Amino acid sequence: MRWMNDCIGLDRYIAATAPKQAVIVGGGYIGVEMADALIRRGLEVTIVEFKGSLLTTVDPSFGILVEEELERHGVSVLTGVTIESIERSSEPLGRLIVTGSKGLRIPADMVLVAAGVEPESTLARASGISSGITGAIKVSRKMATNSTDIYAAGDCVETWHRLLGRYTYLPLGTTAHKQGRIAGENVVGNRREYMGTLGTQAVKVFDTVVARTGLNDEEAANAGFEPVTVAIETWDHKVYYPGAYRMHIRLTGDRSSKRILGAQLLSHRTVEVSKRIDIIATALYNEMEIDDLNDIDLSYTPPLSSPWDPVQLAAQEWRRASRQQNS
Amino acid sequence: MRWMNDCIGLDRYIAATAPKQAVIVGGGYIGVEMADALIRRGLEVTIVEFKGSLLTTVDPSFGILVEEELERHGVSVLTGVTIESIERSSEPLGRLIVTGSKGLRIPADMVLVAAGVEPESTLARASGISSGITGAIKVSRKMATNSTDIYAAGDCVETWHRLLGRYTYLPLGTTAHKQGRIAGENVVGNRREYMGTLGTQAVKVFDTVVARTGLNDEEAANAGFEPVTVAIETWDHKVYYPGAYRMHIRLTGDRSSKRILGAQLLSHRTVEVSKRIDIIATALYNEMEIDDLNDIDLSYTPPLSSPWDPVQLAAQEWRRASRQQNS
Repeated sequence: MRWMNDCIGLDRYIAATAPKQAVIVGGGYIGVEMADALIRRGLEVTIVEFKGSLLTTVDPSFGILVEEELERHGVSVLTGVTIESIERSSEPLGRLIVTGSKGLRIPADMVLVAAGVEPESTLARASGISSGITGAIKVSRKMATNSTDIYAAGDCVETWHRLLGRYTYLPLGTTAHKQGRIAGENVVGNRREYMGTLGTQAVKVFDTVVARTGLNDEEAANAGFEPVTVAIETWDHKVYYPGAYRMHIRLTGDRSSKRILGAQLLSHRTVEVSKRIDIIATALYNEMEIDDLNDIDLSYTPPLSSPWDPVQLAAQEWRRASRQQNS
Repeated sequence: MRWMNDCIGLDRYIAATAPKQAVIVGGGYIGVEMADALIRRGLEVTIVEFKGSLLTTVDPSFGILVEEELERHGVSVLTGVTIESIERSSEPLGRLIVTGSKGLRIPADMVLVAAGVEPESTLARASGISSGITGAIKVSRKMATNSTDIYAAGDCVETWHRLLGRYTYLPLGTTAHKQGRIAGENVVGNRREYMGTLGTQAVKVFDTVVARTGLNDEEAANAGFEPVTVAIETWDHKVYYPGAYRMHIRLTGDRSSKRILGAQLLSHRTVEVSKRIDIIATALYNEMEIDDLNDIDLSYTPPLSSPWDPVQLAAQEWRRASRQQNS
């Protein structure tokens, strides 16, 4: 599942052959979104993920909540299972048999592989343009390659990470659009720099939205920060007003500088999960401290939030936790 | 409609007497929220507003959209009409007759007055504590009154406005909570300052949410800025994914400094209006320029946004508009 034609082909295949059972290899963004889509098309769906939890861009406690949401909607989820073979069976003729570790052996009418992405930089390399991380094209923050007057942007290039202060490979539509705008401006003579990714991502899985920005505890520790992470569970809005949902928040900050490092949010799709993570993304962009979040005049009305927004409640919990760990 | 007991009393009155027709005097936040609530209780509702549009904390073009939403749900809205009298009729005995300008004369079983708020600072004034704007208690940014060791916070005090750089009167729950926390910290020996209101507000009216932050064009001009305001209408998310709604955005920036001054958003209640205004509030808090909004790594997934979030599309439109006005 990479190119538009993969999707169109899949759509036609389903319409033409009415497959009953699908196996999805890979429980990342594409895998869980495809599970959602195929259940709506009436298929039985199994996701097989070789890591210990789904959506490893968020912490396992959130991966488990996503797994529960998938199972509530009829998806079978297998984690910690490695695929070993996909074979065409003779009885019944033409069906597929997927085998893997832990004795996995399941029949399927279709198998979808959504197990990671690599940059397509063949043309650039053939033209003598330098590549770096995982083969992606090396670019400056002006999106210039090492070849005069050649700029590059999108899933084929390395991505400047604003918090890590170094290049990484993180192909996303948001990043591609920003880089493309900057490359375009510089081509016509401006001098503009890509300000960097924050690692912000969101995905909807049935009725759940999960979103993240910045670094989680492990990523922060690996990058040399001293992370303190708190997890809270609260209501998205005042519970006396109908329609409130539980909202899960994980907030990571640096112990000594008190700066925000990252956050993860999970709740129902109707209660402003993704744009709440964007409050943190905007705060991260501005290198704010965690406690500064409490000073921002965020909006409140009982059907939509609380006088202290959930992200501020998380900031208050972080302050308590970091004090206790210091004392 | 000010105290909790006003609401409880109203609730009991409706249960006991089953009124059929209600007139609401005032089309601000409380007025439109009460119209929503009373329609759900089965009453016929008329709002009478003496200004030319509803919700005058947002621009008239948004006030009209709110008016249309109210009318779609059966509320009668009269703007530019001044109430002159509320009298008890003799025929039928006990009903009320509301009269006003433009020949207004409507019967009512109940009349709700939601026409502004004044600070309750009687106790403070009786104690010799200084008051200022509209009679609210004068406080420092540490929330100290002029009387040693007496701090004050909430709807009874003046509010420091972060963009105006001066005190104003703007009683809101969010502000009260922040001020209370700061007063509390200072009472026990910390030295913390209230960082100021940004004028952020949100309200849900039936299926519409309208939110604002910062200054609108008129408020900005009155405060000595050189405002440029753009209005855009876009989809909240990728329209190929079901459930997209039109989103209206007004964005105001300062012509010379390019700084963000304020924004207004309006769309369906399920498409993250209020927390999108909070992206702008967080940017405002950090004194960002309008074009900086395009550099923030905001979240995107097709059911919830676009690779350029609607607030970024508004920022791009602002850049075009301010260039045209400069050339």
